[in-house]
Amino acid sequence: MAPPATDPQEEPVTSTVVVLDPARPEGALVDPSVPLVRIDDQGLTRGDGVFETMRAVDGRVQKFSAHHRRLTASTRLAQLPVPSEELCRRAVELALAHAAPGGDGGLGAEHSVKITVSRGTPEDGPWSWIVVSPVPESTFRQRREGVDVVLLPRGHDPAHDAGYPWLLPGAKTLSYAINMAALRHARSLGAEEAIFTAGGRRVLEGATSSVVCARVRDGNRVLVTPEPSHGILPGTTQAKIFDAARRDGWELGYGPLYPADLMTSDAVWLVSSVRLAVPVRRLDAQPLPVDPGLTRLVTGYVTAD
Amino acid sequence: MAPPATDPQEEPVTSTVVVLDPARPEGALVDPSVPLVRIDDQGLTRGDGVFETMRAVDGRVQKFSAHHRRLTASTRLAQLPVPSEELCRRAVELALAHAAPGGDGGLGAEHSVKITVSRGTPEDGPWSWIVVSPVPESTFRQRREGVDVVLLPRGHDPAHDAGYPWLLPGAKTLSYAINMAALRHARSLGAEEAIFTAGGRRVLEGATSSVVCARVRDGNRVLVTPEPSHGILPGTTQAKIFDAARRDGWELGYGPLYPADLMTSDAVWLVSSVRLAVPVRRLDAQPLPVDPGLTRLVTGYVTAD
Repeated sequence: MAPPATDPQEEPVTSTVVVLDPARPEGALVDPSVPLVRIDDQGLTRGDGVFETMRAVDGRVQKFSAHHRRLTASTRLAQLPVPSEELCRRAVELALAHAAPGGDGGLGAEHSVKITVSRGTPEDGPWSWIVVSPVPESTFRQRREGVDVVLLPRGHDPAHDAGYPWLLPGAKTLSYAINMAALRHARSLGAEEAIFTAGGRRVLEGATSSVVCARVRDGNRVLVTPEPSHGILPGTTQAKIFDAARRDGWELGYGPLYPADLMTSDAVWLVSSVRLAVPVRRLDAQPLPVDPGLTRLVTGYVTAD
Repeated sequence: MAPPATDPQEEPVTSTVVVLDPARPEGALVDPSVPLVRIDDQGLTRGDGVFETMRAVDGRVQKFSAHHRRLTASTRLAQLPVPSEELCRRAVELALAHAAPGGDGGLGAEHSVKITVSRGTPEDGPWSWIVVSPVPESTFRQRREGVDVVLLPRGHDPAHDAGYPWLLPGAKTLSYAINMAALRHARSLGAEEAIFTAGGRRVLEGATSSVVCARVRDGNRVLVTPEPSHGILPGTTQAKIFDAARRDGWELGYGPLYPADLMTSDAVWLVSSVRLAVPVRRLDAQPLPVDPGLTRLVTGYVTAD
């Protein structure tokens, strides 16, 4: 059996946890080394909850409002309550104030900040918690060295789900078993990450990231990503990169993208809040151009205040 | 906000829990009223685990081997370990021996028996647990009175996922957020249950059940269900009903089924291990024929030893 795939943010590290529940509505620090969750919590029994993962640098969370907006959209679809942005901010600050020192990959002291809302037990109902962990070295290594990626069919075009709220389109739920299985499959093929494709091999998104590629030709600089909301989770990191790139004079394109489009790009990245922009070094074993200058530029867009 | 939908088996009841983990490989009784699960358990953070729900009557689990086979298939797809059938049996016996008295709806003392395998924490790895709960009165009422059902598009045909093991086709995972959202949506429409449909309104399966219908014409008795494995979870209860019905002289049919086929049937049931055969009383607000004699017959097939 292959070793269990774990998210880089979920390697065993010293985490700080703040719980917000009816007994502790303002949020309270708890000891994460002891069990905190009941066995009939519906986040566990049914993957019935939603989450956001954010990046804090030197104790400050990036694009907090954008994350809270997406968390709110997820909770609305899932009919869950959401703590206010102010309440979340204060709970995150509490967790960060007690966190182990952040990881340092050259961009400051970095923590991942994950906020989860679970439906809880039938008895006690919904609750939330925040987990703050130092960003591990494996993430910094991926930013520096890039990753090998395989394309995996998603089986269907998730855009077909978009009209049906009960399919939770665009909600970031705890039901990630398939995304985790795709990462295990990618690792069994000697790669580190997976990009899902729809019919005709149209590029959708990474298992836990968005896909962005750059084309620099004849003085034209174009950033392209698959059409957001077209069956994929709208990425807060992709959106921030595009906003900053537009101001910096880039042209912007939105899908459809096919493998050949990635193969002929001048750089392809997997982007997400904590990983920032990780270069794709190989796609289905084919080498892709890696451009450290472009990666620095795009990373600067996402880390800018 | 609508009240949170909860599975009938997950109403707050007195449950008995047996945990199987590296420290307790043979299984040990634990107190379910205290938290048992760590906040970084990947069953919780990623819906990354699999489960089976079984029915015990008078302390005896029905079709245990069929459930253990499906659990094994699920764990294989998810690359998780599975406790042996013998180990599971002994752990279930331990839980049943300490369980609160079973619910009695006229068919004996009934418990639901749920076995879950989670990927666990990155630190400690996979573990399993068994939850035994008395079957609640709400389940007996549904068996007697039937349920109102709405048809909800699944967005895509899950059969398209079947060729891709990383999409976990046929695995019963903890990632059930969409199934729970479909039930909430059904309840917001005044119904109790949902049946998913694919393109052209082809009938797939219930949110947590299989669909079986009966046609009795000119002395011919035919049971029909959507084609198993064609993008739906093969139901152990549907399989047992069909086996017994065949021996009893029924003809058997396997989909495709469309809403009109259900509308013109002589009885339609949602079937699953604990609910047994629950008559569909209304489909999208249209009354369906309910035949208590046929329901008793089909219930007899699934409860037979």
